[in-house]
Amino acid sequence: MEMDAASHVKSGPLSLGLMRVKALPEKMATSIVDAAKNARKLGQDDPRRVYHSLKVGLALTAVSLFYYYQPLYDNFGVSAMWAVMTVVVVFEFSVGATLSKGLNRGLATLLAGALGVGAHHLASLSGHVAEPILLGFFVFVLAAVSTFLRFFPKVKARYDYGMLIFILTFALVSVSGFRDDEILELAHKRLTTILIGGAACVFIAICVCPVWAGEDLHKLIALNMEKLGSFLQGFGDAHLNRPSVEEMTDEKASMKGYTSVLTSKNTEDVLANFAKWEPGHGKFLFRHPWAQYLKIGTLNRQCGYRIEALSSYLDSNFLAPEEIKGEIETVCDTLSLECGKALKELSKCIKKMTKPSSVVARHISNAKAAAKTLKSLLKSDLWADMELLDIIPTATAASLLIDMLACTEQIYEAVQELASKANFKAEVEPTVSPEMRKQGQIMEGDKERPNKNKSSKVVDCCADNDDRHHVVINVVDGSEPDVEKKCGIIVGEVAASSSPPPPCNVNIQLA
Amino acid sequence: MEMDAASHVKSGPLSLGLMRVKALPEKMATSIVDAAKNARKLGQDDPRRVYHSLKVGLALTAVSLFYYYQPLYDNFGVSAMWAVMTVVVVFEFSVGATLSKGLNRGLATLLAGALGVGAHHLASLSGHVAEPILLGFFVFVLAAVSTFLRFFPKVKARYDYGMLIFILTFALVSVSGFRDDEILELAHKRLTTILIGGAACVFIAICVCPVWAGEDLHKLIALNMEKLGSFLQGFGDAHLNRPSVEEMTDEKASMKGYTSVLTSKNTEDVLANFAKWEPGHGKFLFRHPWAQYLKIGTLNRQCGYRIEALSSYLDSNFLAPEEIKGEIETVCDTLSLECGKALKELSKCIKKMTKPSSVVARHISNAKAAAKTLKSLLKSDLWADMELLDIIPTATAASLLIDMLACTEQIYEAVQELASKANFKAEVEPTVSPEMRKQGQIMEGDKERPNKNKSSKVVDCCADNDDRHHVVINVVDGSEPDVEKKCGIIVGEVAASSSPPPPCNVNIQLA
Repeated sequence: MEMDAASHVKSGPLSLGLMRVKALPEKMATSIVDAAKNARKLGQDDPRRVYHSLKVGLALTAVSLFYYYQPLYDNFGVSAMWAVMTVVVVFEFSVGATLSKGLNRGLATLLAGALGVGAHHLASLSGHVAEPILLGFFVFVLAAVSTFLRFFPKVKARYDYGMLIFILTFALVSVSGFRDDEILELAHKRLTTILIGGAACVFIAICVCPVWAGEDLHKLIALNMEKLGSFLQGFGDAHLNRPSVEEMTDEKASMKGYTSVLTSKNTEDVLANFAKWEPGHGKFLFRHPWAQYLKIGTLNRQCGYRIEALSSYLDSNFLAPEEIKGEIETVCDTLSLECGKALKELSKCIKKMTKPSSVVARHISNAKAAAKTLKSLLKSDLWADMELLDIIPTATAASLLIDMLACTEQIYEAVQELASKANFKAEVEPTVSPEMRKQGQIMEGDKERPNKNKSSKVVDCCADNDDRHHVVINVVDGSEPDVEKKCGIIVGEVAASSSPPPPCNVNIQLA
Repeated sequence: MEMDAASHVKSGPLSLGLMRVKALPEKMATSIVDAAKNARKLGQDDPRRVYHSLKVGLALTAVSLFYYYQPLYDNFGVSAMWAVMTVVVVFEFSVGATLSKGLNRGLATLLAGALGVGAHHLASLSGHVAEPILLGFFVFVLAAVSTFLRFFPKVKARYDYGMLIFILTFALVSVSGFRDDEILELAHKRLTTILIGGAACVFIAICVCPVWAGEDLHKLIALNMEKLGSFLQGFGDAHLNRPSVEEMTDEKASMKGYTSVLTSKNTEDVLANFAKWEPGHGKFLFRHPWAQYLKIGTLNRQCGYRIEALSSYLDSNFLAPEEIKGEIETVCDTLSLECGKALKELSKCIKKMTKPSSVVARHISNAKAAAKTLKSLLKSDLWADMELLDIIPTATAASLLIDMLACTEQIYEAVQELASKANFKAEVEPTVSPEMRKQGQIMEGDKERPNKNKSSKVVDCCADNDDRHHVVINVVDGSEPDVEKKCGIIVGEVAASSSPPPPCNVNIQLA
């Protein structure tokens, strides 16, 4: 037995090692498969990544022609390698980034080349001994000054790469000039090849499946706004209607999307910076108000911070006096839903580049009405019977929801400003009949909240913007057909006024 | 008169233009002075920027020796320009960034050079016609694959520059090989010069006033925590004690520091990434737990989001039943102050790299006691007389302050984890007598809130960690000497327990 144990101990590390060696191919295969899966996912998430890779390959192969094709090579010689280098370094994912780098590189090379030739000429006048000392001094001063300039925030944002190339070219030209007497020809060749490489990059970047930084910024801002809207739409349902645990987990995951909004500042800044370099494209003119997008992005984040505070009440139990519990839940639900819908509608407007339609104003006025009702409910005497500590989560969530309305209004104003600055066109109002629209609205409402459980309440307000305003408020309570019996439906016909449509005050009293 | 008016209109643009031309030198002088002021400020804010600029100049001049010094030039020839290029491109602000770029460049050049020579050899076997086609194909495939790899988040974070240089070198070596038969020698020379350039950068970056990314990350995390602490310390005073308008504006400006915490994620990620490349330096060993700093940074931001929500209550008027108004203000004040002090103390611990001392635990237990008192105050029946809507700001702020305590505790835990992972040493407890310490604590408390007005209340809890715990709670109410008459002082002597110290329950009843 002892022998056995000993041999077992001895063979342990050996067999373990052997097992590991045997497992190695399997492990490698697994990691290769994993990497392949990752790569596939990366490509599927954004196919433009694949196109970009192929574009870089294409540009590089095209520029390599300088080496292969004899007449071209005879003209440029070894300088042709600068074209290859330019393509590799300048070709970026978006057109804006490529243009920014290309222009920076071109201009910096031109300027530094001229200065370098001048410095070389000046130094050569000073005699054989002083020349390298003087040149070394020039290089030192220029490198130090340019490097320091790169710390200026404005220079860093737009001309960082240019400053780098400036130092590089000046050092190369002035120093290599010490050996090469045909310095002007060299500088000329280098500049030409760099221009050719840069032009190839810009041409391919713009003509083959272009990726516009401006468009990405535009979409990112709209997407972030949509995420905030999704959270607010989900908040009422997830919190107040208490769906089953699985449903809640699903919904929570989709609601957590807003967290990416909190940290999107850097991406937005980078995209806006590149967008400024881009020429007009698609619906975006040359001097599109990109700065306004950053303003909206900041407001989005402000809204996101409130949501982050709100989200901690997602799991807490709402307590309210029995008499108004149902009512306060419905009103919080409405407020959250209407803010969410307004944000989603604004996001759609940005996406479609249309002026914020009257639908947004209506959602906001609904939300305002709900906020007013909420405030009056909070004023009610019924709360006096309850302990303050118990109602704090409800009160805090209510207060944050009212805050959210202010945020939503600010975003609305900022989007309106964007729409007027960027000349968004007015949206064509749909021409479906009010009845059709009413049906559609209910169906749409249901579609947007797929996880609604039976006891949920849906409050939908729709008002058509044709000659007569039909204000339709439906409160659906579980069973659909017998709506009018269960809850009060207000179908009012309001005389047409130009705009904005009169706020349809939601006064819901559940039976 | 008409003539006069007409001549006035005519001369208008002319004289305007003249005035503009006259104003030009003045304008230019102003902008030059402005730029100089900016530059001075940049240098004063962080003198390391000036040193860095000089270091780059030094490195570049040093490498230029390759051109000037005959024997070296004879050896390397034109390849020496690669050393210049390497210095310009690789020399970054921090040691980590320089090492990251240098190693990436060196390894990528080595690998791509070897592959390039192989590709060239393979292509040359296939005959004169097929050779350029095959080489072009290789370049295309390698460039496309490498560019796609750069989209992998892990590769992007650490090896992005390496991938770029890999494509560049492969393209240059394999393509220029088409012309140059001495390709091996060329590759060897290029690699050597790049290594020399990289070595010069790394040597100067480490030996002359080094800037460590790890140290910067360490300081940034501590600074952010301090900013959060400052807000919390200021919140109680600014809000509850209502200083004069000017004082408030001053204090508010200093409290707004926390906003930079909200958007510091990107900086932290970048610094942590560079820190991983750095060798051990100062108090930081090679495998310092940098990831833990990112964890603390995330918790800081979580705390910052709560503060952002809290800050909107800075201007609102707190309402509470008259009977407990003073008490609730004092308790909110204490809770905010103690959380703030705990965060500041934790920030100090990180800065000094010591284990969180018992002082932090004491502040947190004080805050817990205050939270408990606050909860019991909120439970009081006195609130029943008030309208819920009026007390919502108070309730929300109280709730957020209680949330803040949870955040502070999480940060405390994370810092403890960091301390154990990074082997922070235990702090030497001060040996001053309890009486001295008590005096000092009051003075320190006053110093930290310079803008306190006469009616302010200061609650200070201090407990020494020697053999016997002296729990001293002072409630100072305007006039200092006659403290005991005006308010209750509890001086309890608690038997020594190992740790944590027993919570000193704050039960303050103002006369």
